[in-house]
Amino acid sequence: MTQTRLTRRKFLAATGATIGALPISGMNFPKDMGPGPRPYGEPSPFEQSVVRFLPKTSTPASSYSRTPLQDMFGIITPSGLHYEVHHSGVPEIDPQNHEVMIHGLVERPLIFTMEDFHRLPSVSRIHFLECAGNSGGEQIARPARDPQRSHGLLSCSEWTGVPLRTLLDQVGLKPGASWMVAEGADAGRMARSIPLEKALDDVLVAYGQNGEALRPEQGYPVRLIVPGWEGNVSIKWLRRVQVVDQPYMSAYETAHYTDLMPDGTARQFTFVMEAKSVITRPAGGQHLLGAGFYKITGLAWSGRGRITKTEVSVDSGKTWQVAQLNEPILPKALTRFRLPWWWDGKETSLQSRCTDETGYLQPTREELVAVRGLHATDHYNGIKVWYVRANGEVNHE
Amino acid sequence: MTQTRLTRRKFLAATGATIGALPISGMNFPKDMGPGPRPYGEPSPFEQSVVRFLPKTSTPASSYSRTPLQDMFGIITPSGLHYEVHHSGVPEIDPQNHEVMIHGLVERPLIFTMEDFHRLPSVSRIHFLECAGNSGGEQIARPARDPQRSHGLLSCSEWTGVPLRTLLDQVGLKPGASWMVAEGADAGRMARSIPLEKALDDVLVAYGQNGEALRPEQGYPVRLIVPGWEGNVSIKWLRRVQVVDQPYMSAYETAHYTDLMPDGTARQFTFVMEAKSVITRPAGGQHLLGAGFYKITGLAWSGRGRITKTEVSVDSGKTWQVAQLNEPILPKALTRFRLPWWWDGKETSLQSRCTDETGYLQPTREELVAVRGLHATDHYNGIKVWYVRANGEVNHE
Repeated sequence: MTQTRLTRRKFLAATGATIGALPISGMNFPKDMGPGPRPYGEPSPFEQSVVRFLPKTSTPASSYSRTPLQDMFGIITPSGLHYEVHHSGVPEIDPQNHEVMIHGLVERPLIFTMEDFHRLPSVSRIHFLECAGNSGGEQIARPARDPQRSHGLLSCSEWTGVPLRTLLDQVGLKPGASWMVAEGADAGRMARSIPLEKALDDVLVAYGQNGEALRPEQGYPVRLIVPGWEGNVSIKWLRRVQVVDQPYMSAYETAHYTDLMPDGTARQFTFVMEAKSVITRPAGGQHLLGAGFYKITGLAWSGRGRITKTEVSVDSGKTWQVAQLNEPILPKALTRFRLPWWWDGKETSLQSRCTDETGYLQPTREELVAVRGLHATDHYNGIKVWYVRANGEVNHE
Repeated sequence: MTQTRLTRRKFLAATGATIGALPISGMNFPKDMGPGPRPYGEPSPFEQSVVRFLPKTSTPASSYSRTPLQDMFGIITPSGLHYEVHHSGVPEIDPQNHEVMIHGLVERPLIFTMEDFHRLPSVSRIHFLECAGNSGGEQIARPARDPQRSHGLLSCSEWTGVPLRTLLDQVGLKPGASWMVAEGADAGRMARSIPLEKALDDVLVAYGQNGEALRPEQGYPVRLIVPGWEGNVSIKWLRRVQVVDQPYMSAYETAHYTDLMPDGTARQFTFVMEAKSVITRPAGGQHLLGAGFYKITGLAWSGRGRITKTEVSVDSGKTWQVAQLNEPILPKALTRFRLPWWWDGKETSLQSRCTDETGYLQPTREELVAVRGLHATDHYNGIKVWYVRANGEVNHE
């Protein structure tokens, strides 16, 4: 489809038109009534290229899929295109038989059904989820060729659920309680330790995603949402919360999801996803059709709160312009930025950097590598550069 | 599914438990890996009852479908469940061949392609759409039995597109230009007149819905979004905007979408959807399982801006309590409200009323009927009452 669109665009460029051409043809009219209404709608057949990207190594047991960020608008990711990471498949769970136990260092261990969750006070919040390993290839100088492949382990939804604090209030914490272990009902019992301070702050036991029930690959019927923290902590298919007095040291916080530093030590429990941004248009894999007006747009986000500023450089980092941020700008949510750009037709590079409400500025790759080395690629949040060639191609290197 | 859920709930009630039971059984574990990742995800097979409601009279040419409001969370309606009204079917449009002409009282008539729209500066906004006739049956004392059937011609999405003002700036308005006619590419060429004052204010030429391209039944590849106004004005499958000096008097603003008053005159161009609210849980078609704690939740919205207050009465209108509003509270968007409620097990009724930022308070049915009579049922926004029986049934009358 891009190919043919380009042909049309080239025509406009050739005729000297910028945006909008004079009437040159008769209008096109569909001639029939179409299929009529459906109980549950689907995308247009003309949008079949807008799908999640699955690696060739994908198996039911272990896989991931990436969101097509270059084709996304606004800040909401449609649930059908939300990124996935599965360490032990996608269990099919009947909500009528599903229960979540909260036990351990508590006064009254309790089991909650889905009905219980629906009856309890709930909130809805728009939050991003990002895999700890998102864009890790950039750190080791293996940049990916388009936004989906480089940054696509990133999505944003409106989540609805019960604040975990409400449930912990019901079971009652015993003295000494300081951490909790959340465990999923997937075949591998994915488990992560979370400090109670965070659990009592803004963690949700979520059953709703973008207005409807969670999708199976997003943890149906119930999951944790741990806002701003690496995605794997937001345990899907939640079945158990055990209140404890120290971290559990599960496989996913010892073998996986730790960061090996240059001095041979490993950083552990590096939960927060720091401020990061990426230009999604124009970006790698896209083509510019000659000098003229373009819209630069992309996404910025921070696990520490709101994005306060996003800057864009169109001259290979020499100068930076402040981009416009689309309202609403929400804490721990994607924020859409945009900047009008007149391209002079010469080779250049495009990059973005964001600042969050703590004052933290997204670093360059060089600054990150100087501190972290090249062994651990989780939590990489360096500035992403897209290279514009004189022929209009946008490349990743 | 509701049936079996109730059984479980009854068990909890019988054992005296309120929310969350003591451990009573072994935990359920799925035993296999599941299907693995998919390019485009779908709802769980256990959610097959959560679908749009189609009338028996539905044909491809003329039909509508209603959003299952009682099963919705937060404020975003998933695109697959967005309500539909079609007067002439759902055309299948190839975006590569689609063009939008802007002509009439303009300096430079132009044709825009989808590429042009994608290249122009865009914004994303969360707005509700509501059919002018939504809940009209309530006015003539034929209340519907659940929120989907009573208020389901209502949905809310994040829309992305080009401000119409940007396009009108490009074509240049001629002296005398005061209205515009928007025309769709559906078989019936649905057309509506819109004052230029509104067109230059907040109207979008939208191609994105909840992060992805518009769905076919929502106007793919491009439509108007006229925030806060009756849904039919937000012309789908937009193909033409003609700038004119007076309203066009199309069939849909003479025969349809006018409001016959008791004195025999008809109100015309009654665009704005006034402040309105509805409780979606507990609501008609649902059952309460004995005295105890319940969460009351619902939606409020106003075509004139933000909702500032929503009140709920749990004692048949004798007293009103201020409900909590879920952030973000956005102009011309759905706002989710909630109120904790302890039901004493006695017969009562539940109702909500909202106030918007203009100070307008949602009226009762009686107040509306006194002014408007019973002929025209468009733009009905009276208070909706749900009746709670002592046996826990919630009814519509």
